[in-house]
Amino acid sequence: MPIDTIDRLASELETETERVSAEVDDFFARLLPQPRDSRERLYEAMRHAAIGGGKRLRPLLTIAASRLFAIDPQRALRVGCAIEAIHTYSLIHDDLPCMDDADLRRGKPAVHKAFGEAEAVLAGDSLHALAFEILAHPATHDDPWVRSDLLLELARAVGPNGMAGGQMMDLIAEGEQLDLPAITRLQQLKTGALIEYAVEAACIMAKLQSDARTPYRGYARNIGLAFQIADDLIDHSGDESAAGKPTGKDAGAGKATFVSLLGEARARQQAGFLVNQAIEHLSDHGSEADLLRAIARFAIERDH
Amino acid sequence: MPIDTIDRLASELETETERVSAEVDDFFARLLPQPRDSRERLYEAMRHAAIGGGKRLRPLLTIAASRLFAIDPQRALRVGCAIEAIHTYSLIHDDLPCMDDADLRRGKPAVHKAFGEAEAVLAGDSLHALAFEILAHPATHDDPWVRSDLLLELARAVGPNGMAGGQMMDLIAEGEQLDLPAITRLQQLKTGALIEYAVEAACIMAKLQSDARTPYRGYARNIGLAFQIADDLIDHSGDESAAGKPTGKDAGAGKATFVSLLGEARARQQAGFLVNQAIEHLSDHGSEADLLRAIARFAIERDH
Repeated sequence: MPIDTIDRLASELETETERVSAEVDDFFARLLPQPRDSRERLYEAMRHAAIGGGKRLRPLLTIAASRLFAIDPQRALRVGCAIEAIHTYSLIHDDLPCMDDADLRRGKPAVHKAFGEAEAVLAGDSLHALAFEILAHPATHDDPWVRSDLLLELARAVGPNGMAGGQMMDLIAEGEQLDLPAITRLQQLKTGALIEYAVEAACIMAKLQSDARTPYRGYARNIGLAFQIADDLIDHSGDESAAGKPTGKDAGAGKATFVSLLGEARARQQAGFLVNQAIEHLSDHGSEADLLRAIARFAIERDH
Repeated sequence: MPIDTIDRLASELETETERVSAEVDDFFARLLPQPRDSRERLYEAMRHAAIGGGKRLRPLLTIAASRLFAIDPQRALRVGCAIEAIHTYSLIHDDLPCMDDADLRRGKPAVHKAFGEAEAVLAGDSLHALAFEILAHPATHDDPWVRSDLLLELARAVGPNGMAGGQMMDLIAEGEQLDLPAITRLQQLKTGALIEYAVEAACIMAKLQSDARTPYRGYARNIGLAFQIADDLIDHSGDESAAGKPTGKDAGAGKATFVSLLGEARARQQAGFLVNQAIEHLSDHGSEADLLRAIARFAIERDH
């Protein structure tokens, strides 16, 4: 890629990340108004987790992929926020003392530290349900087939054959030495399924047949894996203030990661290879795919 | 009601409860086959909670209400099982040490006692997602508008404006002396919303307009409240082997209940009044409403 193209993409990604982050925050602020009863604390906990944090990678992916098919940006935003609600619920539950027992998340106290464990369980459960409510609402798409498909595929990505199943694999993996195929499968369920859904959702809104979705699925699968390797590299590097969460946990827990299996140099190389592959999948597209290219290009350069 | 009618209804309810319970067990057994990887433990935990337990009131309600509109029983069963998946997830999370800290559920060890806390969180999360997957699948209904509506209303019944919000109210209520309107509102969210949805789902499948749903909503609201009073009476009576879970917990936690506020006699009277009202809502129907009448009639007579 020419250097001026890289500069332009970096600049576009920065602008779009800021814009999408502000829109996602605004969406959750409207979705979660303060109730005038004893559920106040539940809503506070949800807002604490959902507003003002994270890279908003998943909504950004849905919005970027939606541009390929000229989908209404407001619809893409709603779908992106549903996915972010799921992602946020999973972080809240993963941080619980009985799970990863993490005190810090996105540079703030984890929900169970700030509000209590019961509140964290319920805030996660509530965001889980709200994600489906957002998608099922006619404002997300006027075609009920599209809504129904968005819902079916999200449920699959989130349940025991997706994210929740991957988290179970991750818990079992503590102290076991997984090999590369096993860790790839774990990652594909735990974080890959939802990242892939973020791109798939745009294909569903565009009513693409299954065959026509192949390159976008390839793109999503490649960057899902690249992001996981980047996460492992951050955990390995140990910069907690950049990460906004505790680092070095994987090594401490005796968990195999891409970095522990491949070494740092080969892990970086593999991530670079995956990024190139991801961008290759977009070769039929012109500038409308630039945001997707930018997301892939900078996936492995981020430090948090 | 003549005594021979009562006998006939009781017998029909017993037969149908057994049949529906077997069908729900069979559905979950097929839904949750043993995976050949490290998710085995997650699936075991889900089956432990979902198979072979409970009164299956919610699927029974959906199936009984579906008879009013001659809806395909297999569709009604799928919807009923989705609701039961949600109910089961809520029991698993409610029993967690950070919530109600209950060791016993449906006469068996609670999931966190049998499998661990992390497993209980993930089994609940997995059943939550599976409920939406069941509804979103075309096998549930061929009309995507119906599926989309079923999903939207379930999400509303389950989230922070429904069951999860009610559970938050319940946690906050410990040690506070709620009055009758407050406890009715709490119950309406915590358990009422899902019971009402069980009947509403049949109305959605029948494509009834909102006005036409009024009597069925009235029925569901009345029996939801009657069931809660019956639950409070069981908790008050202290028969743990009949209840299949610890009793006397509400009084122990200093929680106000319908029984603590009204006294046992008036609580029984109120439940009887609600049951009569529920049956009154079905007056336009003939024998096709008998199963709904039987559910209402015996709501307050059950001992567990």
